[in-house]
Amino acid sequence: MTYCCALRLQDGLVFISDTRTNAGVDQISVFRKLYTFGKEGDRFIAIQTAGNLATTQAVIGHLRNQLTLQEQPNLYTVNTMFEVAQLVGRTLRKIIEDVTEDTQEQSNYYCSLIVGGQIGEAEMQLYNIYPQGNFICATKDTPFFQIGESKYGKPILDRALTYEMPLDEAVRCSLISFDSTLRSNVSVGLPLDTLIYRADSLKMPRGKRITHDDEYFQQISKQWSETLRRGLHEIPKPTEDYLE
Amino acid sequence: MTYCCALRLQDGLVFISDTRTNAGVDQISVFRKLYTFGKEGDRFIAIQTAGNLATTQAVIGHLRNQLTLQEQPNLYTVNTMFEVAQLVGRTLRKIIEDVTEDTQEQSNYYCSLIVGGQIGEAEMQLYNIYPQGNFICATKDTPFFQIGESKYGKPILDRALTYEMPLDEAVRCSLISFDSTLRSNVSVGLPLDTLIYRADSLKMPRGKRITHDDEYFQQISKQWSETLRRGLHEIPKPTEDYLE
Repeated sequence: MTYCCALRLQDGLVFISDTRTNAGVDQISVFRKLYTFGKEGDRFIAIQTAGNLATTQAVIGHLRNQLTLQEQPNLYTVNTMFEVAQLVGRTLRKIIEDVTEDTQEQSNYYCSLIVGGQIGEAEMQLYNIYPQGNFICATKDTPFFQIGESKYGKPILDRALTYEMPLDEAVRCSLISFDSTLRSNVSVGLPLDTLIYRADSLKMPRGKRITHDDEYFQQISKQWSETLRRGLHEIPKPTEDYLE
Repeated sequence: MTYCCALRLQDGLVFISDTRTNAGVDQISVFRKLYTFGKEGDRFIAIQTAGNLATTQAVIGHLRNQLTLQEQPNLYTVNTMFEVAQLVGRTLRKIIEDVTEDTQEQSNYYCSLIVGGQIGEAEMQLYNIYPQGNFICATKDTPFFQIGESKYGKPILDRALTYEMPLDEAVRCSLISFDSTLRSNVSVGLPLDTLIYRADSLKMPRGKRITHDDEYFQQISKQWSETLRRGLHEIPKPTEDYLE
């Protein structure tokens, strides 16, 4: 499986992806699931992928091929992030249709994508793109999307994340979400790829890969366990009627 | 959906179940998913159910009918908790087989069960029973089972729960697990049914129903949100290389 999470906040975009893929439990590999496109000063686009690895790689391959061959439209000639989402969605849908004529079997080749970025002076946008090629857009009310093994890490985002949260705090919140997922599900694994884009910068962020020996992530993991255990102790004992 | 969680700890057994059932989003009902059987001084048996409501009700109905008609074996005549699990598993498997001849369609009628209890002087046991009628047994290493919407509430159990934990703390830990699930998934809903059985007591616990206006559960929910937000603030800011 996979876990990818992306935030669209007042101050910018945050993307975090794990890198574990598995076909059965005895075929586990590391593959990047966070891709970036863009031109400094013009546009920044990030894509995260979850699902069938051949399909996700085909999507990225086609998008890059369109750029190489200067096919129209491509990621560098469309005018808005909405058109980016449309282009990626159409590409995804076509790839799934091409693999099999049998619509019953298509779900074996499904993947989900998160696409975010900014073009020119328009607002940043974040889209969750479905295997059918349609998509939804993040809002102030719902400033984050998750794809893959999303449930373990959802409670902390539901409780703590807000649109107005500073980026560094949002990164911490997301890393806790990942730590919870990593601990409860072996199909999600380190290293993690992170990327923080600052609103209106139109700069390509360098990003960071968090490996097993990353001291900051180790500290988060350890400290969060202590937070939970201490918080549990601080909750008053249940009244007698609970224990009867 | 459903969320049920059961613990087998040094000091006793803890069972908590939600009560929400839904067929689509516009047909939501309250049904108890925690059932008890037993005779003071002889045996205590609790059963939790998740899955197709007709199937789960049929299982409980058959088990009760066996008692009424004094069919052999029944829950009050089997000698061990292992035999209880076998009896419940066989009953479940037969009900699913009876609904449809088509094995492809059987999964529509699946349900999962947790069965725990104690008979005479033998050790307490806790079983997770699958739709096929087979089952696994809780151990000191893995002292809890979950059925239904288990993922949202798993991280806190993975991190904090231990076999040696006192019952009152284990109840708090489980209620946090439920609170996280309730907040992130509308298919799990209040009221909750809780039951705490003290090891070797062979007493039928009264149990408690936690409703929307339960002050203790409201306090847990509020205090836990504060714990998480405070814990998030206490985590040091990421180093600069995270934000580049």
